[in-house]
Amino acid sequence: MRSRFLRTTPFLAAFRAYHEARSVLVGVPLDVTTSFRPGTRWGPRAIREVSEVLEEYSPRLGRDLREIPLADLGDLDLVPGRVEKNLQLIQEMAEEIFSHGKLPFFLGGEHLITYPLAKAAARFYPGLVVLQLDAHADLREDYLGQRLSHATVMRLLTTELGGKNIYQLGVRSGTREEFEYGYNHTHFYPGDLAAPLEELKLSLVGRPVYLTLDIDVVDPAFAPGTGTPEPGGCTSQEILETLYALRGLNIVAFDLVEVCPPYDHGNVTAVLAAKILREAVLVIEPPAAGQTEHGGSLTR
Amino acid sequence: MRSRFLRTTPFLAAFRAYHEARSVLVGVPLDVTTSFRPGTRWGPRAIREVSEVLEEYSPRLGRDLREIPLADLGDLDLVPGRVEKNLQLIQEMAEEIFSHGKLPFFLGGEHLITYPLAKAAARFYPGLVVLQLDAHADLREDYLGQRLSHATVMRLLTTELGGKNIYQLGVRSGTREEFEYGYNHTHFYPGDLAAPLEELKLSLVGRPVYLTLDIDVVDPAFAPGTGTPEPGGCTSQEILETLYALRGLNIVAFDLVEVCPPYDHGNVTAVLAAKILREAVLVIEPPAAGQTEHGGSLTR
Amino acid sequence: MRSRFLRTTPFLAAFRAYHEARSVLVGVPLDVTTSFRPGTRWGPRAIREVSEVLEEYSPRLGRDLREIPLADLGDLDLVPGRVEKNLQLIQEMAEEIFSHGKLPFFLGGEHLITYPLAKAAARFYPGLVVLQLDAHADLREDYLGQRLSHATVMRLLTTELGGKNIYQLGVRSGTREEFEYGYNHTHFYPGDLAAPLEELKLSLVGRPVYLTLDIDVVDPAFAPGTGTPEPGGCTSQEILETLYALRGLNIVAFDLVEVCPPYDHGNVTAVLAAKILREAVLVIEPPAAGQTEHGGSLTR
Amino acid sequence: MRSRFLRTTPFLAAFRAYHEARSVLVGVPLDVTTSFRPGTRWGPRAIREVSEVLEEYSPRLGRDLREIPLADLGDLDLVPGRVEKNLQLIQEMAEEIFSHGKLPFFLGGEHLITYPLAKAAARFYPGLVVLQLDAHADLREDYLGQRLSHATVMRLLTTELGGKNIYQLGVRSGTREEFEYGYNHTHFYPGDLAAPLEELKLSLVGRPVYLTLDIDVVDPAFAPGTGTPEPGGCTSQEILETLYALRGLNIVAFDLVEVCPPYDHGNVTAVLAAKILREAVLVIEPPAAGQTEHGGSLTR
Amino acid sequence: MRSRFLRTTPFLAAFRAYHEARSVLVGVPLDVTTSFRPGTRWGPRAIREVSEVLEEYSPRLGRDLREIPLADLGDLDLVPGRVEKNLQLIQEMAEEIFSHGKLPFFLGGEHLITYPLAKAAARFYPGLVVLQLDAHADLREDYLGQRLSHATVMRLLTTELGGKNIYQLGVRSGTREEFEYGYNHTHFYPGDLAAPLEELKLSLVGRPVYLTLDIDVVDPAFAPGTGTPEPGGCTSQEILETLYALRGLNIVAFDLVEVCPPYDHGNVTAVLAAKILREAVLVIEPPAAGQTEHGGSLTR
Amino acid sequence: MRSRFLRTTPFLAAFRAYHEARSVLVGVPLDVTTSFRPGTRWGPRAIREVSEVLEEYSPRLGRDLREIPLADLGDLDLVPGRVEKNLQLIQEMAEEIFSHGKLPFFLGGEHLITYPLAKAAARFYPGLVVLQLDAHADLREDYLGQRLSHATVMRLLTTELGGKNIYQLGVRSGTREEFEYGYNHTHFYPGDLAAPLEELKLSLVGRPVYLTLDIDVVDPAFAPGTGTPEPGGCTSQEILETLYALRGLNIVAFDLVEVCPPYDHGNVTAVLAAKILREAVLVIEPPAAGQTEHGGSLTR
Repeated sequence: MRSRFLRTTPFLAAFRAYHEARSVLVGVPLDVTTSFRPGTRWGPRAIREVSEVLEEYSPRLGRDLREIPLADLGDLDLVPGRVEKNLQLIQEMAEEIFSHGKLPFFLGGEHLITYPLAKAAARFYPGLVVLQLDAHADLREDYLGQRLSHATVMRLLTTELGGKNIYQLGVRSGTREEFEYGYNHTHFYPGDLAAPLEELKLSLVGRPVYLTLDIDVVDPAFAPGTGTPEPGGCTSQEILETLYALRGLNIVAFDLVEVCPPYDHGNVTAVLAAKILREAVLVIEPPAAGQTEHGGSLTR
Repeated sequence: MRSRFLRTTPFLAAFRAYHEARSVLVGVPLDVTTSFRPGTRWGPRAIREVSEVLEEYSPRLGRDLREIPLADLGDLDLVPGRVEKNLQLIQEMAEEIFSHGKLPFFLGGEHLITYPLAKAAARFYPGLVVLQLDAHADLREDYLGQRLSHATVMRLLTTELGGKNIYQLGVRSGTREEFEYGYNHTHFYPGDLAAPLEELKLSLVGRPVYLTLDIDVVDPAFAPGTGTPEPGGCTSQEILETLYALRGLNIVAFDLVEVCPPYDHGNVTAVLAAKILREAVLVIEPPAAGQTEHGGSLTR
Repeated sequence: MRSRFLRTTPFLAAFRAYHEARSVLVGVPLDVTTSFRPGTRWGPRAIREVSEVLEEYSPRLGRDLREIPLADLGDLDLVPGRVEKNLQLIQEMAEEIFSHGKLPFFLGGEHLITYPLAKAAARFYPGLVVLQLDAHADLREDYLGQRLSHATVMRLLTTELGGKNIYQLGVRSGTREEFEYGYNHTHFYPGDLAAPLEELKLSLVGRPVYLTLDIDVVDPAFAPGTGTPEPGGCTSQEILETLYALRGLNIVAFDLVEVCPPYDHGNVTAVLAAKILREAVLVIEPPAAGQTEHGGSLTR
Repeated sequence: MRSRFLRTTPFLAAFRAYHEARSVLVGVPLDVTTSFRPGTRWGPRAIREVSEVLEEYSPRLGRDLREIPLADLGDLDLVPGRVEKNLQLIQEMAEEIFSHGKLPFFLGGEHLITYPLAKAAARFYPGLVVLQLDAHADLREDYLGQRLSHATVMRLLTTELGGKNIYQLGVRSGTREEFEYGYNHTHFYPGDLAAPLEELKLSLVGRPVYLTLDIDVVDPAFAPGTGTPEPGGCTSQEILETLYALRGLNIVAFDLVEVCPPYDHGNVTAVLAAKILREAVLVIEPPAAGQTEHGGSLTR
Repeated sequence: MRSRFLRTTPFLAAFRAYHEARSVLVGVPLDVTTSFRPGTRWGPRAIREVSEVLEEYSPRLGRDLREIPLADLGDLDLVPGRVEKNLQLIQEMAEEIFSHGKLPFFLGGEHLITYPLAKAAARFYPGLVVLQLDAHADLREDYLGQRLSHATVMRLLTTELGGKNIYQLGVRSGTREEFEYGYNHTHFYPGDLAAPLEELKLSLVGRPVYLTLDIDVVDPAFAPGTGTPEPGGCTSQEILETLYALRGLNIVAFDLVEVCPPYDHGNVTAVLAAKILREAVLVIEPPAAGQTEHGGSLTR
Repeated sequence: MRSRFLRTTPFLAAFRAYHEARSVLVGVPLDVTTSFRPGTRWGPRAIREVSEVLEEYSPRLGRDLREIPLADLGDLDLVPGRVEKNLQLIQEMAEEIFSHGKLPFFLGGEHLITYPLAKAAARFYPGLVVLQLDAHADLREDYLGQRLSHATVMRLLTTELGGKNIYQLGVRSGTREEFEYGYNHTHFYPGDLAAPLEELKLSLVGRPVYLTLDIDVVDPAFAPGTGTPEPGGCTSQEILETLYALRGLNIVAFDLVEVCPPYDHGNVTAVLAAKILREAVLVIEPPAAGQTEHGGSLTR
């Protein structure tokens, strides 16, 4: 009998049981609506497997992952070829995790997962802001006839949460309509990542933030293994600096999506994603004031 | 504005207009329910692109593809991430082609496309037989919760057409239930391809046959570029010999599915598929008794 | 029967007939004199195939490719292993296109194609300037015994058009003799792309310009799929910025050469080339003052 | 804190705890003495990961892996770059497993692991026979100055167990000295696998057998992902048939070595290895006479 | 200063100086007229580099390469992009080698090299027979407008030496015209390699034979790294058996062509070619009756 | 009989005999203690093979490699799977080279080779400084139980030479302990390469310097082919600029380590390494004051 999660090689230092950890890692390998090249279903596993090349310690942050009790639940067991059913499974799983007061780090999978995940977060964190780092606006009303798609996910969330709660950074691709929609309805900062950061942080202080990072915000030279590569993005250093700049925000959930291993020769994208994930945990997880047992029994 | 078919580099010698040809080639790049590794959406294009490495002439058959008026319609324009909608689009397209009296050669895409394609054929050819060459039985009642799947396609057709009209050759993988179902309900010849051919041909003489060839019936050494490789299959020579042995049958439609280019290093699978397709056209298309104009205007 | 052009999957939005378009796209897959790693013959097809990952809209330029009538003629049908014969075929084709008043965008193939292409342009545009973006000077008198070579192409054009009509940007590799020749005979701006742009633009205002872009001007991290990679080049952003800076010049023809797909893992080079091509069309093609029918019947 | 085994994605259906299973799977990723291309350290993980492409049911054997309680301990945690220390760790682990009365299936790693593994087995099974399926004789006295090497492993075992207890099948590569040694000291059946099987089975009836299968016994067409490929080997079907022919022998341990993922494009070798492993378990594990709890607490 | 040969990593055990060896190895990396995928220029180097995976000893032949004085001259230094010039360079080099009484083993490069090589051999060996093992007839009168091409090489030799001196084995691809030409003018044995061998050997006894082996005679499963793969060929074992069957013939020169490393994932083709070359030397080179100094000073 | 060095395709313009050259190139393919992905044993060969894509002339330095007598000894013949023995072989070889007054350029292989190489240098150059460019501190006391490891090499040298003689630039990964050790015991400049260069040069003027460059100091986008990629490194341009900035120092030996070809798709890492090596020779080798014969007979 299969459990609800598929057991996998765990991420770097994520050896704790669910009830022992506040921060939990979950793979969400949805890979259905991809229009160009598929394969993000292998993303979470690839990121975990290559993570052993990294140290647990971050010299930039002066923190060590081994000091944080971190659980890795494995990959959520999804149904091939189904959109609505999977979105429901994902949302239920996320709601349960939030209900236990956990701080989740989700690994995609395609970007559409952010729709149910952020909806779940919003139920537990009123006034939730979604902060997106992405090459694409993902603001289409529908995409190739579909309302539920990796290319519509931010539009769906705009409808769900209100455009004033959506912040979009780094966008460099979209239709004319998406750009007009972004300028008119969301906090839309296309192009360079660094410039708007200070302004943005000021307006987000104290609010609960769901941070979603589409790996294609990084240039394909640094992250070739993704479904829809878009030349002209930031460097590895710049994406890490952006993350560091967000320290101090009240980030209540994080996802990292669109890593696509079949196109990731030499695994450079997966290694970058693993480093982003390590730094994200170290940036987001509050310094422990005595690690105690955390409730919940998700996998049982 | 996009037409119903996406224009592509045409298959070897398939330069005729639709109305000039009896045999027509259509790409059906469905790639949604794949449970293991996706990518069959690129199959039709890869097969066409590599086809230029081949001669149009078959020394084994003594025929030349250039002597047959062959049209290549390009790839059917499908909707990412949708099963039912796409099956409907595929069936409608196939019905229109059959209604024009054409002899279609479909290129997948995943095996699920055979469900709408054979249903369409059955509407025009009463008593239709489906003859499957495949490593997998594809006889599950449902697969990971789905009734519509590459792993259920022959079960669906058994329900649709009756088990006595289903012939399955070369199967070497399935659940215990699938094997029992096959032995009890279809003409089930697992394992070696050559042994049952004579018996099978005798029982099919004169009946309209839909021939579906899943490339994974061939061993992964010869066809690594497929979604669910299954070691222990036949050689390139053996699959070609099987095709030659079917000469004389009344084959009214053909499909070749599950070529998955992202895993096809050196393109050996696509080249094999292109050769199978060339030989299939030369085996199936009746010797021309004066090439005349053929009706229909599908792409207009 | 084969036509003069090989039909291919068309580039993003290039769906118009030749007579309907002012801007025309042509593949010129010459791949003969390559000394290191061959494969540029597949360049034009790869660029077209991956172009579907891009939007037609450029947020940077505020223009949409769908607003420009663009024809894609396919690949010129060349003869394997012949230099002079192919250069003649290429020049004749280009002259016919220029004679119809078209604005051509050529996709190589190796850099030698710029020799016949620019010669053809010069017949129609007196005072033509060739502006080259390239890692290599290509100023050898001969290369491994050959006068006609990818490594001599700019020297040939210097002879043909006069060194004062040759502008070379970004060169970071060559022999001592080439660098001396460049400094003495052409407008030679080695190294950084951005610094000389303003000066260069001033001196080119109003003159007809043939713009040739060798993808290896970009660093191999961003463009690994090329025949002679040279570390130390510009980024994706910088090559795009250079293109934007050329807006306003009277560019009468454009080529993009040396994309070599066999070494382009994850297709990042082809995607970058496709984006460069999209932006080049949007930068070069003058804003339409009512799109009307354009003369010529090249493919007929 | 790291445990003695590294947790990994488990092999197909191997979901039981150690104490519940008689058959246990262990990865032994030794990868130190490889002279040509390294990478077998990734072998066990690759085999497990691709195993999901297979069914648990074997139509050839009429058995289902889910009917057998199977534990997957993960990969033994070895020390990089050390031979003797690792051989000691491996032998101790194996002795503990044998001491619990388990039936182990070891996944390499390089072939040298068979030395400590078979030594451990011999302590528990007096009169142990080692039956090797391999392209190489591995009978060198030393290799490039080393006595402990993948190329000396069978010579070491000959010394340890006596040549009359060593059976070698399928060897097609070695030095003149190795072939002479084999003919004079072991049961040496080079070349074709099938011919000697009947004779061999007769002489092994009733004796405890350690079966070691080097994947390079299979031709590189079917198993390219290995360290020292040797053209001219058997097919996938033939290696499986050899396995089936060994049914009835008293096999007390099994290893499958030399799968090298970095050279295994399209994963065909890993998938073949996974199928061999599934069939090996189904061939070797005796039909359950009521699955009961099995003792031992190795991982605790 | 470059010498006439480019120095390379030498082939397995080919460490002797030119004047010490009767058998000499020469790389001839011609790669100009290739119509489909280029790259055979890297063939000789790849074969040499992977050769270290092999033993020098052949158990099948009971001979060891180290017992034969073998020189490896490196790669002939050719001119990129030139056909006639290179053919002249190749012929002159070969004539010099034959003039010293050497037994050459040439490594291609494309098949066109056999034209100048066999012409050179014919000058020294009156009544020379060319025996070809190949998937393609190579009997075109011209190919894409070229008289000198990899697809015309056997036709050129038929003209040069007379069809009765041309023997063709294993051909499975060609135009109708080529097959008719073959049946009418050469000793043409298409298809299976083994059947005609005895008859063929009888008719060749005592005559000087130039043996040319195009690696694509082997099925792409065993030899994917080639320019024009043709499914349906022989296995690794079968090509080796064919070679063994030719023992006793008076082979005066050997070439092995069309290995194309850019498409040779996992190097399986290069390893097969290296084994073929080792066995060819051991089959062809007469048993030494006291190794003495051999004349000639080619590289000096 | 094998010599002490394995003959290989020589590096660009390194055609001189040992006694004719002051600068000598040696491959040191140690690849034993690698904990993540192995393959650096192929590094030296890959760098040499791709070097032909480069010119011998450096426009940045105004020097030409052909003006410098440069010898390439090939690869040192090591023993697979042995640490101590190989370190001894390496040290002896280096001492002999230094004893002849040569200026060596070593190509790794894993970073551990710097331990015996720098020890050898220190015997000949009292007061030797080791200057390291690297992503990793390599300051562990032991690594996975090993004192001799690529992760301990700088710690070993600190013990050997004293921390005040160790300069470390560009480090961005390590344990907390390593960073503390670096700050307390070596000249430790983590992060950005450019900032500390001026200060560092002042303190090194006149002292003998061993320069060791681990290719992973460069970002994986520019150098994916390495064993332990660490995102966030410098660009190709920046590493070259760092090298240029070191002009004028008394560099007495150089090594370039950790190039790992199995993960170097498109060879971009090897090409970058080849360019670094060319520039390093041109930066380090003093302008010739009349090239005379240099003593020594290492390979004889």
